[in-house]
Amino acid sequence: MSDIAAIEAAAGRLKGHARRTPLLSSPFLDEIAGRRVLVKAECLQHTGAFKFRGAWNALCALAPKGVVAFSSGNHAQAVALAARLKGVPSVIVMPADAPAIKIANTRALGAELVLYDREKEDRDAIGAALASERGFALIKPFDMEEVIAGQGTTGLEIAEQAGAEGVAGADVLVPCGGGGLSAGIALALEARAPGLRVRTVEPEGFDDVARSLVAGRALGNVPGGASICDALMAPQAGALTWPVIQRLCGPGLVVGEDAVLRVMALAHDRLKIVLEPGGAVALAAALASTGAGSIEGEAVIVVASGGNVDRAVMARALES
Amino acid sequence: MSDIAAIEAAAGRLKGHARRTPLLSSPFLDEIAGRRVLVKAECLQHTGAFKFRGAWNALCALAPKGVVAFSSGNHAQAVALAARLKGVPSVIVMPADAPAIKIANTRALGAELVLYDREKEDRDAIGAALASERGFALIKPFDMEEVIAGQGTTGLEIAEQAGAEGVAGADVLVPCGGGGLSAGIALALEARAPGLRVRTVEPEGFDDVARSLVAGRALGNVPGGASICDALMAPQAGALTWPVIQRLCGPGLVVGEDAVLRVMALAHDRLKIVLEPGGAVALAAALASTGAGSIEGEAVIVVASGGNVDRAVMARALES
Repeated sequence: MSDIAAIEAAAGRLKGHARRTPLLSSPFLDEIAGRRVLVKAECLQHTGAFKFRGAWNALCALAPKGVVAFSSGNHAQAVALAARLKGVPSVIVMPADAPAIKIANTRALGAELVLYDREKEDRDAIGAALASERGFALIKPFDMEEVIAGQGTTGLEIAEQAGAEGVAGADVLVPCGGGGLSAGIALALEARAPGLRVRTVEPEGFDDVARSLVAGRALGNVPGGASICDALMAPQAGALTWPVIQRLCGPGLVVGEDAVLRVMALAHDRLKIVLEPGGAVALAAALASTGAGSIEGEAVIVVASGGNVDRAVMARALES
Repeated sequence: MSDIAAIEAAAGRLKGHARRTPLLSSPFLDEIAGRRVLVKAECLQHTGAFKFRGAWNALCALAPKGVVAFSSGNHAQAVALAARLKGVPSVIVMPADAPAIKIANTRALGAELVLYDREKEDRDAIGAALASERGFALIKPFDMEEVIAGQGTTGLEIAEQAGAEGVAGADVLVPCGGGGLSAGIALALEARAPGLRVRTVEPEGFDDVARSLVAGRALGNVPGGASICDALMAPQAGALTWPVIQRLCGPGLVVGEDAVLRVMALAHDRLKIVLEPGGAVALAAALASTGAGSIEGEAVIVVASGGNVDRAVMARALES
């Protein structure tokens, strides 16, 4: 079961292997937000996203002879690198329309790639069949205890780093796809910094968690939608992540694509970090001045979850 | 006098005020370089460059009623922020052709700006006259003990972080304009990690230190030159920095503009950090395969000294 003990165990496994990412800030962003904005820069994690935490923890905990994973890209790279560092083979199932940089990087990290059609094929079925055929462990992208615990180590660091900044009460905005990062951080903060409350942030068109929190039950996204936030397109939260989110998270936030592109440029200018669209949604929500359930308080903490963006998309953001 | 005691004193003043920046890496960069590449990401420092270290140390040590500084931009922003945090006024003398983002940021940080013509006017004379008129302290960009000691704290962190990575012997490539960062790091490493040797890196056309190291005496740059590396255009090393560089640094390295732009894009892709041209020269040298005095050994450490780049220049790099 995902709990603080599992997250502490994950932190022990990650020590010296995952990066302790910095909590960044800029007086210019504080001014836009009208409060202190503290940015947990997980784009600086190995393979450019928080996903390495969960992948490494799962590899260490399961010690498989090989691994299979399905992913739009960030989980794929994380599992590929973790497997390479552990010296075991990896097979990654990716949508054929994933960003070119994510496909190329996953291959370069030594993984065997299986591409599928996002509209017509079922990645869960493909992944499960491959794992069974080869006798490999399936490392799911979010709905898996070891993965949630690994992502939760981000929350342990936020608790410590926010404490060092004198911030004891604040919303913690977390980009949310399947909910592994949100659930993991929420569990860590419940135990270590109860004044910090997770709020999920999703892109328009993929706001299933925000709607689910209102409805009080797990809803899915309308199939066939498109978003520049390729990392946040899971059809719905998981059987393990949703109950945690429902119990611990505040009202969900939703941001539009234009705001995401503008914030990618602001992160470039003010924080000197590269964010992918899905990694920028929480910062976009923190800097938006309006909206239901808007943020209050003297400070807000933002998770900048990933930076694996194609050059052309960043160039577009810089023109915004 | 700049020595390890002064650097340790600066580290005490910076604790809790300057950021301890991470040492980043990527297996993709290691492959290009043919060795481990460890990148000290000073672009993540407050105001986007290492300069905050020296400015903060000087403000703390001198405790003036106000400050004057001249700078192409990064030192300007650093002094402006440090003065604002200390609650004293700042007057900044900047070239009228400095990058727009550096001029705008310096003004937004509360400084009074005095723009001058780089070709026709003497910034030293303007700065000295302003300081004398107002009774403010002049915080020089590099040739000042307190500033060199502040920049040297980067070297203390490199010594610790390289040790944690198991790297005891390596070249440490440092972008070099007036030599404050190079001299400060070299003094810190001499005392704390003698197996690490600083090597200055300069852009073509501003390679005075590389030529000076060959000649055995301080030479200047040819006036009137242009470079995209606006942070590294000092006419020559300082009276305080040059003797330290001559005593402690290995052969200087020089890189061209095309290599700098390519490496800015690679830092975007692989490290998720934003580098300005002058901040990218050391990484460019680390990834170049040829050249006199080229790098040897199993690892190389690179200082990524700043990230204050206009969006248009980054967009140009991303097209390279």
